[in-house]
Amino acid sequence: MIFDILCEDPKTSARLGRLATPHGAVDTPVFMDVGTLGSVKSLEPRDLVETGAQVVLGNTYHLMLRPGKDVIAAAGGLHRFMGWDGPILTDSGGFQVFSLAKMRKITEDGCRFNSHLDGHEFFLGPEESMEMQRIIGSDIAMVFDECLPYPCDRDRAEKSVGQTLRWAARSKAAAHADGQLVFGIVQGGVYDDLRRHCAEELVKIGFDGYAIGGVSVGEPEELMYKAVDASVPHLPADRPRYVMGLGVMRQMAECVARGVDMFDCVIPTRIARHGTAITRKGNVAIKAAKWIYDQGPVEEGCECYCCRNFSRSYVRHLLACGEILGLRLLTIHNVFALNRFMKDMRSAIAGGYFFEWKEQIKKETTND
Amino acid sequence: MIFDILCEDPKTSARLGRLATPHGAVDTPVFMDVGTLGSVKSLEPRDLVETGAQVVLGNTYHLMLRPGKDVIAAAGGLHRFMGWDGPILTDSGGFQVFSLAKMRKITEDGCRFNSHLDGHEFFLGPEESMEMQRIIGSDIAMVFDECLPYPCDRDRAEKSVGQTLRWAARSKAAAHADGQLVFGIVQGGVYDDLRRHCAEELVKIGFDGYAIGGVSVGEPEELMYKAVDASVPHLPADRPRYVMGLGVMRQMAECVARGVDMFDCVIPTRIARHGTAITRKGNVAIKAAKWIYDQGPVEEGCECYCCRNFSRSYVRHLLACGEILGLRLLTIHNVFALNRFMKDMRSAIAGGYFFEWKEQIKKETTND
Repeated sequence: MIFDILCEDPKTSARLGRLATPHGAVDTPVFMDVGTLGSVKSLEPRDLVETGAQVVLGNTYHLMLRPGKDVIAAAGGLHRFMGWDGPILTDSGGFQVFSLAKMRKITEDGCRFNSHLDGHEFFLGPEESMEMQRIIGSDIAMVFDECLPYPCDRDRAEKSVGQTLRWAARSKAAAHADGQLVFGIVQGGVYDDLRRHCAEELVKIGFDGYAIGGVSVGEPEELMYKAVDASVPHLPADRPRYVMGLGVMRQMAECVARGVDMFDCVIPTRIARHGTAITRKGNVAIKAAKWIYDQGPVEEGCECYCCRNFSRSYVRHLLACGEILGLRLLTIHNVFALNRFMKDMRSAIAGGYFFEWKEQIKKETTND
Repeated sequence: MIFDILCEDPKTSARLGRLATPHGAVDTPVFMDVGTLGSVKSLEPRDLVETGAQVVLGNTYHLMLRPGKDVIAAAGGLHRFMGWDGPILTDSGGFQVFSLAKMRKITEDGCRFNSHLDGHEFFLGPEESMEMQRIIGSDIAMVFDECLPYPCDRDRAEKSVGQTLRWAARSKAAAHADGQLVFGIVQGGVYDDLRRHCAEELVKIGFDGYAIGGVSVGEPEELMYKAVDASVPHLPADRPRYVMGLGVMRQMAECVARGVDMFDCVIPTRIARHGTAITRKGNVAIKAAKWIYDQGPVEEGCECYCCRNFSRSYVRHLLACGEILGLRLLTIHNVFALNRFMKDMRSAIAGGYFFEWKEQIKKETTND
C-alpha cells in the first residue's frame, strides 16, 4: 500500500492519510512548498524541517533550464543537490512551457519552445519530461499534460483532453525510475463530462495518484469546486488526490472536504517577499506603517522562529529597508503558518470535528 | 579591569586579550561583523552564534535614519530590537555623514546634513551621537570624529585633528549610558606627529579603548601600517586598540603584529552578495563557470553550515539564478571563515607561534 487511509470524516469526504515515498511518509492532507529552482526561496533544508514542511516541489521546466539536467545528474539528483532528504514532487514542466516559454510548435510528440530566459530552444514531450524527472530523482513524478486556460470553449477542451490522455499513457510507459510514484492529471476545464471522461481513462491507465489540474487558473471559486466535484467521484478512493497550484487556506479546507489530499502553491513564499504574513485570521501587511512601533510578534501565539524572536516593528523595519532578513523571516513564518494550518486540519479530521473546524475557518479566515 | 591581557607574543606586539562588556566578554584579536541596519545582512542571531561571531557593529547614521531613534527606543534598544544579546559596538555616525550624506554645514557644534535616502535634514554632533548611541544601548560607543580622506594636506589634517579632539572631549562629557564603554579615535592622516599628538591628547581625556581611524581609506598599504605604527606606541598598553574598517586577512595579521586588537569591515557580507568566498588561500569567485559541476564544498575542510551541506555546483547555481539562498549560504561561509581566521590567530598567539603563522598567511593568502 502506497497510500494508507487512517481515518475518514463522518460528515464530509475528508480523509486522513499517509503516503509512502522513497524518502519517507507524508501525512495528508498536506501542503507542499515550492522550491522552483532547487531552493524554497531563502530557506535551507534545516528551515524546512523546522517549519514542518513535508514535501518540496521542484519545477521540471525551471530545473531543465537552470542548472540543466547534466548538473543535477552530476550531483546524483535533486535531493543531494539541494541537501533535502525528504520527499520531492516534480511537475512535468507542461504548465510552464504553456505559460512562460515562447512556444514554437506543438505536435503529437510534444512542445518545441524557446526558454523565457535566453531564447535557447528546447523540446519537451512526455518522454523528455519523464527522463528529466528521473534524473531529478523525485519521489513523485507528474505526467506531461496540457493545462487548459480559463475560459476555454468545449471544442478546444475536448481536443486537449484527448492530447492529455495520449501524453499520460506515454508518460506512464516512459516512467522507469526506481520507486518513483507517477501521478496522472485530470483536465477538462469546466466541463463535467470531460472531467469524468478524463478521470476514467486515467484510471484505466493506472497511476499511483491523481491530480486535478487546470483549476485555480482564474475561474470563479465556485467553478473550481465544481471541477473538483466532477473529478473526485471517478478517482479510486485508495489513491491520493492532488489539487495543483492551490494554497489559500479556506479553499484548501473546502477541497479537503471534497476528498482532496494534497496541495502546492507559491503563495507563502511569494507574499512573504512582498511583506505579507499569513495568519490564522487572514493575511496581514507587515510592511504597513501601523506596525512601526509594534512590539508584538508577526502573529500572536505563533511558535515559529520569527514570532518567537522578533517584533512586527523589527520585521517591518527590515522589509521597509529591503533587508533580505525581513523577507526570510516572513518566509519562515508563512511556511510555518501554512504547515501548521494543515496540521490543525489533520487533527480536526482525526478528532472527528473537521466539518465544524472548516466552518469556523470559513468565518475567521479572510485571506486569499 | 575592562581589558585583560592574557598573553603577549614574544616576537611581535601581538597580544591575546579579553574585553569585558555589559553583554559578555570578547576574545581579542577580534573581527566584528557589520550589521548596518540592525541585521548582519541575511543572517539571524542564531547564525551569528553558529558562525562564531562575537560582536555586531551597528551604524549610528543608518539607524538614526531608519528605523529612527524612537523605534529603537520603543524596543528598548538594539539588542532587543534585533534579538542579539551579545556585545554591540556602534560607530559615531561621523564617517557616514562625511561620506554618504549631503553635507549642509559643518560648525564647531557638529554637522547639518541631508539624508542620502530622502533628503530629510538631520543634525549630528558629539552630544547627538552619544545620545543616539545611548538609545541604541551599544556596549561600546565611539566618539564623534572627522575621518580624513586620503590624500589630505597637512594644514587640513592639523585643523581636523583639533576638531576631532574637541569633539572627543565633548563626546566623553556627554557619555552617560550605564556600563557603556567609550572609545576615542586617533586621526592625523599620514602625518606621524599629528597621530602622536592626537593619541596623547585622547589619552589625557581618558577612554576605555582607542581606535585608529582614517586608515584603509584608499592609501597604499604601507602608509596604513605607518599610521598604525605612529599611533600605537602613544596609546596605553592596557586598553584595547581598534583599526576601523579593515577586514583583509593579511592586513589584520600585520596590524595585530603591531599591537591592534579589534577590526570591523563589510567585506565578508558584501563580497558574498557578489558571489565571492573567503578561503584560507584567498578569495574564490564561486559564481565562475568552472564550478558548474563541482561537487566539492565552497572551501575544502571548512566546518561551516554551507560547506558541510552544499557543493560549489549548488551554490554557484543559486548565485547564477539570483536565488537569495545563494548569497545567504556564502555569507554564512564568509563570516565563519573570518571568525575562524581570528580564532586561528588567537591560537597562534596563545601557542607562541604567531610570527611564523603570520608569515605563512602572508605567503598563502592572496585575497584583498
